This record gives sequence, C-alpha cells and structure tokens, in this order.
Amino acid sequence: MDGLMQERELLISDILGFAARYHRGAKIVTARPDGSTVHHTYPQIHARAAKLANALKARGVKPGERIATLAWNDHRHLELYYGISGIGAVCHTINPRLFPPQVAFIVKDAEDTHLFVDPMFLPLVEGVADAIAGVVKTIVVLDDKVPDSKLGNRFEVVDYESFIAPGSERIEWPRFDEKTAAALCYTSGTTGDPKGVLYSHRSTVLHAYAGNMADVTGHRSVDVVLPVVPLFHVCGWGIPYQAPMAGTSLVMPGPRLDGASIYRLCEQESVTGMAGVPTVWMGLLKYLRESGNRFTNPPRLVVGGSAMPTAIAVAFEKEYGVVIRHAWGMTEMSPLGTINMPKVENANWTTDERLAHFKSQGRPIFGVDLKVVDDHGNEVANDGKAFGELLVRGPWIASSYFGRPNDPNFTADGWFRTGDVVTIDQSGYIEIVDRAKDVIKSGGEWISSIELENIAVGHPAVQEAAVIGVNHPKWDERPLLLVVAKEGETPTRDELLGWYQGKVAKWWVPDDVVIVDSLPHTATGKLLKTELKKRFADHILPAA
Amino acid sequence: MDGLMQERELLISDILGFAARYHRGAKIVTARPDGSTVHHTYPQIHARAAKLANALKARGVKPGERIATLAWNDHRHLELYYGISGIGAVCHTINPRLFPPQVAFIVKDAEDTHLFVDPMFLPLVEGVADAIAGVVKTIVVLDDKVPDSKLGNRFEVVDYESFIAPGSERIEWPRFDEKTAAALCYTSGTTGDPKGVLYSHRSTVLHAYAGNMADVTGHRSVDVVLPVVPLFHVCGWGIPYQAPMAGTSLVMPGPRLDGASIYRLCEQESVTGMAGVPTVWMGLLKYLRESGNRFTNPPRLVVGGSAMPTAIAVAFEKEYGVVIRHAWGMTEMSPLGTINMPKVENANWTTDERLAHFKSQGRPIFGVDLKVVDDHGNEVANDGKAFGELLVRGPWIASSYFGRPNDPNFTADGWFRTGDVVTIDQSGYIEIVDRAKDVIKSGGEWISSIELENIAVGHPAVQEAAVIGVNHPKWDERPLLLVVAKEGETPTRDELLGWYQGKVAKWWVPDDVVIVDSLPHTATGKLLKTELKKRFADHILPAA
Repeated sequence: MDGLMQERELLISDILGFAARYHRGAKIVTARPDGSTVHHTYPQIHARAAKLANALKARGVKPGERIATLAWNDHRHLELYYGISGIGAVCHTINPRLFPPQVAFIVKDAEDTHLFVDPMFLPLVEGVADAIAGVVKTIVVLDDKVPDSKLGNRFEVVDYESFIAPGSERIEWPRFDEKTAAALCYTSGTTGDPKGVLYSHRSTVLHAYAGNMADVTGHRSVDVVLPVVPLFHVCGWGIPYQAPMAGTSLVMPGPRLDGASIYRLCEQESVTGMAGVPTVWMGLLKYLRESGNRFTNPPRLVVGGSAMPTAIAVAFEKEYGVVIRHAWGMTEMSPLGTINMPKVENANWTTDERLAHFKSQGRPIFGVDLKVVDDHGNEVANDGKAFGELLVRGPWIASSYFGRPNDPNFTADGWFRTGDVVTIDQSGYIEIVDRAKDVIKSGGEWISSIELENIAVGHPAVQEAAVIGVNHPKWDERPLLLVVAKEGETPTRDELLGWYQGKVAKWWVPDDVVIVDSLPHTATGKLLKTELKKRFADHILPAA
Repeated sequence: MDGLMQERELLISDILGFAARYHRGAKIVTARPDGSTVHHTYPQIHARAAKLANALKARGVKPGERIATLAWNDHRHLELYYGISGIGAVCHTINPRLFPPQVAFIVKDAEDTHLFVDPMFLPLVEGVADAIAGVVKTIVVLDDKVPDSKLGNRFEVVDYESFIAPGSERIEWPRFDEKTAAALCYTSGTTGDPKGVLYSHRSTVLHAYAGNMADVTGHRSVDVVLPVVPLFHVCGWGIPYQAPMAGTSLVMPGPRLDGASIYRLCEQESVTGMAGVPTVWMGLLKYLRESGNRFTNPPRLVVGGSAMPTAIAVAFEKEYGVVIRHAWGMTEMSPLGTINMPKVENANWTTDERLAHFKSQGRPIFGVDLKVVDDHGNEVANDGKAFGELLVRGPWIASSYFGRPNDPNFTADGWFRTGDVVTIDQSGYIEIVDRAKDVIKSGGEWISSIELENIAVGHPAVQEAAVIGVNHPKWDERPLLLVVAKEGETPTRDELLGWYQGKVAKWWVPDDVVIVDSLPHTATGKLLKTELKKRFADHILPAA
C-alpha cells in the first residue's frame, strides 16, 4: 500500500526559487579578478538564471544536453548551475587545471555543445580547439565582452551578458522526474582516462539536505559561507545547493585563492564558514603568521580533498581560534561521505584529545552506508586498527560512470569501491590508511604505503619519499622505499631503515632503499605510483 | 536522460540501522510511571524492534496492514515505530485523549488488526470493545504482564515482552518502494469525523532530513532530546526519526508531563532540547517559579500545536535563559511547515525585538511551498498585514485522506488548504490570524475572530470569550461577541464594546454581546465554534 503524500519531485530549480522568494536579505558577493566585489541577491541570481535558461531554450538546447563550464567561483557560475540544470540540461563543470589533452578528452566524451569559459581560460580552449571543434558549437565568454581570439574562426563566440540578454527573467521552471540528470563531473584519476559521474536532481537535493544537517556542515540563514573549493570540484562540495536551501549568504572568491586575498574577503564580508583543500589552509596559515593579522570573528573551516596534517589544524585552533573539521568524500559520492564531528562519546574531550582525533576523516552521514572489507569481501573488525577497502552505497552515490556501464569499481550487489583503504572504529570514525592500489600486500597482510612514507619524511635528511610494493617470491610483495634527499644530505640505507625501528611492526620495515633525484607527480600534485611501480618492477630486493 | 546514481530507497528501517551501527554511545532513557528510569542503547532498540518485526511477520502481519498504538512516549513505542514500519506495515498511533467513540471510529476506519496498549489505557479499550471487536484481533499490553481484564473474552490479549520473545533479534529489513505507507495519524478536527493521514517512507525520511537542518530543529549527536510532544501527536513531530538519524540521545518522559517531572528528568539526564505544546511549557514555567529551581544548563525549547502567548516566551528567556522557538505544522504536513529561526535581516535584533517577533510561527522550511490567497485564489501582499488562507504543497504533505479520495481540502492543482488564515511578510515569516472557518467575512473583507477574542479576554471582567460571525443582510456576516464573565463580575454590553476602541478598526468592533454561562469545547480544549454558530444562527443584531 502506498502512502498518501504529494508526489512532489526533488528538483534543483526549487532550491533557487525558494531562496529568491524567502531569503531576499542574503547576499551573493563575487570577488572580481581585480579584487573589487560585486553584490547580488537571490532574487537577482534567480532572474539571471531564468534569463540564461530562456536563452538556452530559445537556442534549442534540449533536456539531457551537456553544457560545460570552465570557470572560477563567481555569480555567473552559480547562475549556470541553476539555469542549465533547471531546464533539464546537464551542467558539466570542467577542471581547468587538468592537462589540456584531458580537457579535450572530457569535452569530447561528454559531447558538450556549449562551453561557458572565464576569459583567463580562453588560451586553454584555443589550445584544444582542433580536438573539440567537432563537438562544441558555441563558446560563451563569462564577461560582458569578447576579447581578441582566434576561436571565432571555429566556433560561435559570444559574451555571457549578450547571450542571456534576450531571455526573459520570468520562468516557470519545468517539472520532470527527479532522477533526471542535472550535473556532470569527471574524476581526475591517477590511472586511465577521466570518468564522468552524472548526478541527478534527486541525488543533489538529498545531498544538500544532508549537508545542511546541524552535525554536517549545517549552514544557517545567518551564516556567510565562502567556498574556496572550486565549483568545478565535485559541485563545490554541494555548497551552491546547500546555501540557497538554507538562505545562507555566499562569498565567491573568483580566481584569487591566496592567503591574503581569502583573509581580506573573509574580514570584509564577515564570513562565518569556509571550505577547501589542505593547500589553501596552509597558504592561509602562512599568511596569518607572516602578516600578524587575526580574524575579527574566526570562521569555521571544513577541509577535504586530501588528508591534512594535524599540525595545521592544531596551529589554526590554538593560535587563531579557528576550528577545522576534516571531511571525506569522492567525485562518485556527490561528494559528502564522512565528517569529523564530535559525538556523545567524545563530547567531553579536552582540546588536545580532540585535536589528536583530527586526523580521522570522520563518521558517516546518514544516507551513506559504509563497509570496510578484506581481500575476501569480509568485513574487518571495527576496532580502529584493522584495515580494509572502503565500500559505500546510498542515494547520492554513483551507480556507474557516464558511457561506461561495466566499470569494476561498482560491485554486482550495489556497492561502490572507493579505492581507499581505511580503519573504522566502534563509533564509526574512519581513517584513511592508503589507496587500495598502493597498499602493499605482504604474506596475506596489508601494509600502508602512506604510513611508511610519513615516517620517512620525518627523517631530517629526507625531502620526499615514496613507498611501493615490489614482487617477492615468498611474500608476494615487499615494501621498497624511494627517497629524494634534502640538498647537501646523503642518508644511507641503514640509517633510513633504522629510522623505522620502534615506529612500526618489524615486518612493515621496507626491504630496501633507493635514493632518487625526483619523484613523478600528476597534474594535481599526487605521487604517480603507477609509473614508479613500472620503473622498479625488476628491482631485486636483498635477501633478508 | 537519467542521472547515474544508485537507486537507493529512502526507508525508515535505514534510520534505526544507522543509529544502531554508528551511534552506540547514545542513550534512550524511558521514565517509568513510578518515576524510575530505564536505559537502552540504539543497538538494543534495534534488536528489540527486530524481534517485534519478526514476531509480527510470524503471526502473518502483511505489508500495508494497520497496527495501532495507544501509548505514551517510551522505548516500546519507539520500537513499535520501527518494528511495524520496517516490515512495510503501517504504524497507526492513536490519541488516547480523544472521546472513546472517536477512538472506536478511528480503529474501525483504519481496520487496525492489532492494538498495542499501555496498561493505563486498557479501561478505554474495554469501553469500546463492542465497537472494535469485529476489526481488532489481538491486544498487546505494553508491559511484561497482562493485568486482569475482561478483554480476554473478546480478543487475544498478550503482554508485549511475551509477544516479541519468539522473534529473532537479527533481521534483514525488507527493501521496497519508498512511497510505501509507513505511518497513519488521524486529525482531531473540530468538525466531522477524524480523517487519516497516511505517511510514506519517503515523506518521513525527507521530513527527518529537513528537521535536522541547522536552521530547523538541528539535532546533533551530542544532544539529548526530550520529546514532551506525544508520539501519537503527528509522529512526535518527527523526533523519533530525526534523533536516530543524527545519533541524538532520547529521553522518553512516559505519562508524567507535569512541570516537576519534566524538570527533574531534564536535570537528571542533561537534556539539551525539548519540544511540546504551550500547555506543557506553561506548566513548567509555573513549576520553576513556585519551586525556585533553575536549569543547570538551560535546554532549547520548541513550541507548536497551537499559538503560545509571547509573555511565556519572554518569561522563560528573561528569567531562566531558556530560548523557545515557535514552530507551525499540521497532521497533514508530517508536521513541519515553518519555524521561527533568525535570518540575516534580523540577526542583529535586540533580545526585546526578537522576543516581540516570537509570535510569528516562522518562515518556511525548504520542501514546503506556501501561498497565501484571498477568496478568489489570488496571492495577498507579502507585507505582514494582508491576510488570506494558507495553502501548502511539498513531498511530506498529504495528497488526500485515508479512504476519502475527494476531500475539498485538496485543490485540483495540487495544494493542501491548511484552513489557517495568516499574514506573511517579505522575509517569509507567517503569523496565524484565524482559522478559515472562523474568520468573519464582512463586506468582502476578513475580520479575525481570534484577535477580537484576545482583546476581550484582556478585559478585567472577562473569563473567556468567543467571537463568531452571524448573518447580516447588508454585510453578509458581522461579529458577535460571546462572553463568560469572571465570578462576581457583570460586564455590560457598552463596557465590552467600548473596550475595543482604539484597539481595532471601527468596522471590526462586534455588533453585539451575549453573556453566557459557559462555552463548548472539544476533547483537546479547542472552542467548538460550529456549535456556537448553530446556537446563535438566528441572533438578531441590533441596528447600527
């Protein structure tokens, strides 16, 4: 028997409509590249998103059509989020930091018909013009004019303000099935081609509700939130949806994400909360220390994207009264999975106890089912020590990749393999130990390459370190330590291996060390272990 | 084009499963009728709900079957919420304060096959035994024994602990369509028979997400919430779902809702938040004043169900540091519709300004669309002055009543007529002015009967007052004031009508006054204006 409740679809257009109607007092501030700011209200953003939507429809954009963005965080990008998804088309945010061939691959894979591009990314588009000319028809420059460019020979090129000008600011947003695709993001994997994740209206609205829960990021109408995380990074972690849902004010930082710019914007606009990756907060901390500046009202920070050293969180809280929450998610997860918020069991911890616990990526948010399994698919002990691969499922987690129906990341029984190796404790707090492909499988047991690397970089003579598994006749794999020495230092094999004594179990200690000149990285700065594994595949480990 | 997200249904069983898995440290405290307490954890509640579910299945309870409760707030009632809904049956909570014939009507209308009854409500069931014998098969006494009763002649009677004993505490909760019916509540209308509202799993989970948003009730894992609102009052306003979703501890007060008991429980269990109707808070305030007791840590309160006098909120905050939030909802709305939380526009109000604004029932929660319309269906000005009937729609709002497909409360274009007459301001804050059926329609304009009654009871000689519209040849309706005088007082017509001078527009002043001995009320204490309208239908108003 069905309930007798209204069949009201969860649609993204309702979020902005709600904010425009009931949260007229909130502000949407955009920092321009020159440092000046421009202010809008939700009714204004709604009117401009409607103009965009009407313009897209008038140009024949159809439901399901992919429309791409290459842009920083500003009010126009926010309008694109709503104007495109609102009419049932797909807002495809592209990461402009990717290598140009990846950008070209992504545009072609998604079959984007329109590119909405910040002026500063036009050279990037020019560089891939040949590759994408068969797919893209129109390039819209996110400005009120079009700069000189050769793109006009291959594409229709128009500025954003002219593009939306003919559209009416009145709209009756269409209603359709909430499972309709709304947004598309590509993973920037370290191996293989990027893969697209296609979010639905339903998944996006549910994820926004979850994000607004008091124990998650909990945005309120009285808050002013600055997403340092780019809108091309997994839907800006959901903030462009959470904020209008709660009537929260937004401060869009544009391209200037250095510590000084962020600090100034924060103070100027009375920001209460920010979200971003570790690099940003390290830059901000450096700026605060060098400038001697302090926050008038310390904002709350959320950090995700990669693990942040505990020392940074300690410095922020103890020196500046700024509390940072560690969160974890993935492109395939919309992205929110876990957040390190206190629980009744640890509510009375001292500041030091709490800060020591910062390194955990947190506990699951309702809507995300977790399981941590060993090689045989059996759940490991929830004791904070045993580790295994993390599998997740839930209504805002991908079921497959765009155009790739049979990816092995998705299990037959409905779980997504995150590729992260974690521990999980009795309270549900997880801690990422390694990536599944990097973990070293020695005699049926797992060794964390990351933990061994962290120990190595603690050695005074080590600049950078990587640990990889190499084949071993008896143990299957054994760890090999690769080290870049600090300038002028010449650490020895015995010195480096001796450094592990007492820090890990004996069988975790690497079998050998190679001093190298440099280590290879991806475009986003991650170690390229696949390449190292190839290079050292034939490395002969010394007999024990 | 559909998104590529997992098709994971929103099911109520996932909420308790989540709490049992990740929130083992939270407590569920039940106050027994004798004042002692019993503690459980979410894993224990989950295990007992599983035993109940398995017992129900073993007895042949089918999906969609209605299973009723007549019970106060305790851990067993919480188990019933999950054990019944979890297997796809419908948890039908009955208000034991209704008149017995209404209880009998409701049981028959719902076709409840099982009644789960607190021992103290067995006399009520005995009183309606004849009427319900054809429908109900089994009566389960919510205790570990069955007291003496004649019910055994007509029904299978068993105690709850024996009932669940054979069931396993392990369960794989079934998965089914999220639109499946989960819970049933009847309205206690002032006119006509009670009408059933049938909630779905989807509506219930969405409503719980919304309730947990930081700007709504915002429960957190570190909170301890005491629902004074009974679990038979619109699903306990969603708290039985919101709390486990957030890992929040619950304190279940049982039948003792007097100020002293609530205060003691609050202090003993370090309660951080409570929710209930105005009467409860008035009782608590009276107790605090008489006893001289104060809260060690003042809890946050939410008030709903009917309008609470601002003076009570002022007293709580100024005398006891207790902040009360006004909320509004209806049985047909799951119930959350609006809540009076601050916004950016009024974040800097002084305490006095904020308290003066307490009387507003608040602003809409995302998921609830509002519109306020006049007699012709046109939206009134959002100026905080014009008033009209409030219409709502959204995914947790009823589409029709159980077994009554064509009720005029539901419009053809998908809105639910709340029957409340409200003002709404630019910021979306509403204030209830009257019930639509009680508002007096004079010359095409509306007059609030409630406002005229509130003014009348401010007169020193008036004990209670009612204002109704009576037919008028020229103005259609004009207000008639009915007054119960205070003992020993004999207010005159001129005195009472003169009292309105300067307090309302001249054309709002009642045309006549009748002094009566008493006024008729419903079981829940509301004025029975339908009866008054019948009684005074032929009242001749004096010529102006």
